[in-house]
Amino acid sequence: MIDKNKTIDNTGFSHLSSAEANRFANKDGSYNVKRMGVSFFERFSILHTLLKMERWQFIAVILIYYLFVNTVFALIYFLIGVENLKGAKLDSGWANELLQAFFFSAQTITTVGYGHIHPTSISANIVAAIESFTGILTFAVITGLIFARFSRPQAYIKFSENALISPYKSGKGLMFRLSTFKNNQLTDLNAKVILSLHVNENDTITTKFFVLPLEIDKISSLSMSWTIVHEINEDSPLFGMNAKELIENKVEIMVQINGFDDYIFHTVQQRTSYIASEIIYNAKFVSMLGKTDDGSMSLVDLAKLNSYEIVK
Amino acid sequence: MIDKNKTIDNTGFSHLSSAEANRFANKDGSYNVKRMGVSFFERFSILHTLLKMERWQFIAVILIYYLFVNTVFALIYFLIGVENLKGAKLDSGWANELLQAFFFSAQTITTVGYGHIHPTSISANIVAAIESFTGILTFAVITGLIFARFSRPQAYIKFSENALISPYKSGKGLMFRLSTFKNNQLTDLNAKVILSLHVNENDTITTKFFVLPLEIDKISSLSMSWTIVHEINEDSPLFGMNAKELIENKVEIMVQINGFDDYIFHTVQQRTSYIASEIIYNAKFVSMLGKTDDGSMSLVDLAKLNSYEIVK
Amino acid sequence: MIDKNKTIDNTGFSHLSSAEANRFANKDGSYNVKRMGVSFFERFSILHTLLKMERWQFIAVILIYYLFVNTVFALIYFLIGVENLKGAKLDSGWANELLQAFFFSAQTITTVGYGHIHPTSISANIVAAIESFTGILTFAVITGLIFARFSRPQAYIKFSENALISPYKSGKGLMFRLSTFKNNQLTDLNAKVILSLHVNENDTITTKFFVLPLEIDKISSLSMSWTIVHEINEDSPLFGMNAKELIENKVEIMVQINGFDDYIFHTVQQRTSYIASEIIYNAKFVSMLGKTDDGSMSLVDLAKLNSYEIVK
Amino acid sequence: MIDKNKTIDNTGFSHLSSAEANRFANKDGSYNVKRMGVSFFERFSILHTLLKMERWQFIAVILIYYLFVNTVFALIYFLIGVENLKGAKLDSGWANELLQAFFFSAQTITTVGYGHIHPTSISANIVAAIESFTGILTFAVITGLIFARFSRPQAYIKFSENALISPYKSGKGLMFRLSTFKNNQLTDLNAKVILSLHVNENDTITTKFFVLPLEIDKISSLSMSWTIVHEINEDSPLFGMNAKELIENKVEIMVQINGFDDYIFHTVQQRTSYIASEIIYNAKFVSMLGKTDDGSMSLVDLAKLNSYEIVK
Repeated sequence: MIDKNKTIDNTGFSHLSSAEANRFANKDGSYNVKRMGVSFFERFSILHTLLKMERWQFIAVILIYYLFVNTVFALIYFLIGVENLKGAKLDSGWANELLQAFFFSAQTITTVGYGHIHPTSISANIVAAIESFTGILTFAVITGLIFARFSRPQAYIKFSENALISPYKSGKGLMFRLSTFKNNQLTDLNAKVILSLHVNENDTITTKFFVLPLEIDKISSLSMSWTIVHEINEDSPLFGMNAKELIENKVEIMVQINGFDDYIFHTVQQRTSYIASEIIYNAKFVSMLGKTDDGSMSLVDLAKLNSYEIVK
Repeated sequence: MIDKNKTIDNTGFSHLSSAEANRFANKDGSYNVKRMGVSFFERFSILHTLLKMERWQFIAVILIYYLFVNTVFALIYFLIGVENLKGAKLDSGWANELLQAFFFSAQTITTVGYGHIHPTSISANIVAAIESFTGILTFAVITGLIFARFSRPQAYIKFSENALISPYKSGKGLMFRLSTFKNNQLTDLNAKVILSLHVNENDTITTKFFVLPLEIDKISSLSMSWTIVHEINEDSPLFGMNAKELIENKVEIMVQINGFDDYIFHTVQQRTSYIASEIIYNAKFVSMLGKTDDGSMSLVDLAKLNSYEIVK
Repeated sequence: MIDKNKTIDNTGFSHLSSAEANRFANKDGSYNVKRMGVSFFERFSILHTLLKMERWQFIAVILIYYLFVNTVFALIYFLIGVENLKGAKLDSGWANELLQAFFFSAQTITTVGYGHIHPTSISANIVAAIESFTGILTFAVITGLIFARFSRPQAYIKFSENALISPYKSGKGLMFRLSTFKNNQLTDLNAKVILSLHVNENDTITTKFFVLPLEIDKISSLSMSWTIVHEINEDSPLFGMNAKELIENKVEIMVQINGFDDYIFHTVQQRTSYIASEIIYNAKFVSMLGKTDDGSMSLVDLAKLNSYEIVK
Repeated sequence: MIDKNKTIDNTGFSHLSSAEANRFANKDGSYNVKRMGVSFFERFSILHTLLKMERWQFIAVILIYYLFVNTVFALIYFLIGVENLKGAKLDSGWANELLQAFFFSAQTITTVGYGHIHPTSISANIVAAIESFTGILTFAVITGLIFARFSRPQAYIKFSENALISPYKSGKGLMFRLSTFKNNQLTDLNAKVILSLHVNENDTITTKFFVLPLEIDKISSLSMSWTIVHEINEDSPLFGMNAKELIENKVEIMVQINGFDDYIFHTVQQRTSYIASEIIYNAKFVSMLGKTDDGSMSLVDLAKLNSYEIVK
């Protein structure tokens, strides 16, 4: 049933089914792969980690950094002797002294420097000179990161949660659709869809990959929505496969969309994946399009992105 | 009259005339589409909004932010008790106290920190430490935004306001022209022109799209001006169409220019659109070119970009 | 002699010799074109101007800005009354008062805020709050510009000052060469060479453009030097042309090199142009290559980039 | 044995073996070339140098800069007279005065400005105004550099240390492999492999270059690992060459990988090179792949990247 000649070898995934997880790619397009044999620090990209973490995690990291560095410098001033910080109130025990050192540290690292507390001894002056310098450098990096997170180009594409096998022409077609949901505009998009399935050949299970030919694989702009269609004709690896066989063969559809954000002039990319259980048999999408009452603008209803109806 | 085989399906626009606005793209190239079914916050891209807004709006947003944050911190200092801010003048009622708190707040958030007013209590010190930290982080983001707005690559292309149908070769041609107007230089440009028109087929009106073949669709540099020409021969969807039919068929010409800014080494893109009423029949462009009196430089007169004369 | 069919129309330059300057492109690759018909402010790109100006001009612009803004705020404090700036020495006349206001302004705009001078009245406090805010925003933009100038990707390519017409194969070839001179590495380079010449056809002089076919137009890396060669065979527009005719026909060779900086991962572009008087007839380049004494590294001698010898 | 017609001329390297070092490219992909004939300052790219240097070198450069600038300004204040800095302790000799000037300088350049020391004379005020301005500008550039170093896109690809000549199909193949080792994802990769060898033709030794055809030269994603294979068939320049001849002919394999980092949306490139002594004859790679115990993720074991076994 499957034409071996059309399989492809250049997905970057392995053909060994024994090395394979439940799905190749996750719903968000990340690969379902774990790396070992390198130390944590070598494997760990600070940049990617800080850019990818959730907003609340990132804010927590920054606050902890601020508290930590301030505490370290406060301890140094405390060890040198808070009497070297003129203006600090020194009459209520070590806890208060540490607190005064902490406040002086915060005033120094942020370069506010009110001056009602100020260093007098040489040692305290040197520490303060180092701290203000440290403050300038690290805060600038932190704010660089904030800006990088904030301004990172993103595709802002939503995919339908399900792919459908719908009536198409005289036969069937595999379909899913996508739309942008932000006030950005993408132009010159292209789509690449790879299908993987498991095949039992001579009693060993191997994984085969196919590039699915698409009715349209490039569009000029993603102004409304885009329904990506693969016709299931005799040349398709999906030809003649029913819903049960989709699951038995562990079919997975990996999708990659590239486009050009026409405002920040940057290429963006977004991926997703549909496994067999996310493919609906005999269903078709409901239209998302309309126009405003005064006819002046076209409308795209994103709430209907995954709306489909079952076809008898 | 229209050859169905040459229509294209990959514009990203819909063929349902019922879902269509008066024009697909606006004069500035933005798509005439409204998205619904997603919440405002999901639909809203802070980055794109802050980059795209007018300069005065952006300045207003920043000023309001500065006033707002200062006022919030001023209220906190006021609620804690302005007597914790040593140096603040406290003798003229709550309005003055609030004002003193506001000025202290401004001195803290900008990290000026003159110090004649400074926090004494633990609570005021903590708030000040938070405020100076907040100030550093958010101002850096604001200035990042200013820089991003300021340094955003732009094509700086002006299009002629009208497209013309002019005598060309032995027949006619659709023409419009463009030029850069800033002191930047674009190289390796290419143009893509899509025509849409409404067709009544079996009593339903559908929209058809065509890629218009151009006499020249790539140029090495946009050093002077570029007149883009589509020959209206028998293969053209515009062949035999008169001015009235242009309007009846709701003809729209969508234009996309890509180029490479040779100084900041960034690809830029600009789009525009001509609807039927912006297409002038039987007119031709007047030359914009000349040279300086001493012959040392070529001249491009942008005031004539849209200058045309009617041809009998 | 010139095959009209091979001329090209997509250079972005005009065929009207009457609109032509002495040369199309300058030695640094900029186009020899002046734009008119737009107001100065519309024509002027602040970004490109600030990025392109000489270093000393840029430093001058920044210093003047700093002096100017400080002076403006100093005048405002002076007009409000310097007695509102507590700590300023007020005993030596208006010149000193202005100077004290200027120093306070400098301390405020840079957010140093020593505090020995500080605002007391409401009006002075408001101005100071505005000034420190202004300082933060504009200095950040200035430093953004400094960084943008500093970190702008550049090709750092040096071209030979002359192009040569050298013996090549059994006939002649047009040659020039180039090399990088910085400690950067370029990969995946390509070259595009356009020739323009003036032709007298039916008593009107028009300009014709030709893409010159090159022996090698793509290289994997510019590790050493690259001699670009156009064989002057029967298909070449230069075939049979002698040194005098090069000048009579106002021959110009426009060169564009694109490459990829393999460290900052950015495409870079550099252009140049050779007019007839910069083309040396019957000369050939001298080798620039060698190796270090210990044989461990190859050597490129950039001092010899334009070294050639006359061939009898 | 070697088909001259398939050699290529567009590597950017020279064919003159006399100008050749021991290897064209180093293990890290940099070219083994030294440039002369340009002055140090012209050859030196500050940006590339500061971005490429080791982290500890970069930190040292910054610290030295901070100390240097502070010392220069301290000397200026000292020469003007430290009595113009009110609040400085002036009772313990010139060394202490210089130290007080240094601390004031540090407080000024970082814009901490405590204010317990502050300038009183006009000259000291002017120097302080210049210093705080200098501080803002240069620290911002430094932090820009820190951010640029930190956020520079990188491929994070590890190559196997050796290339192997392994059994492949009915004959042999040249193989090496690579994997990413960080938590980034690369998509749309392509590989280019160039072979160089020395040939004795008519008693002069020249270098020949060949593009090696690869079984797969493009992959969709580098999710696991990629073994790059060149089949050594009759068309291969390596056909029939034994281990000794690899060394005699000074064979070198230059590799370039381009890919797209799917998170920061930037093209990245990494290169390496294998010289004859790094090519193992009759060996094959050991699998690096597996899956987690619960079967939910695939595993790549980078410790085995260079693991191979000798084939009899």
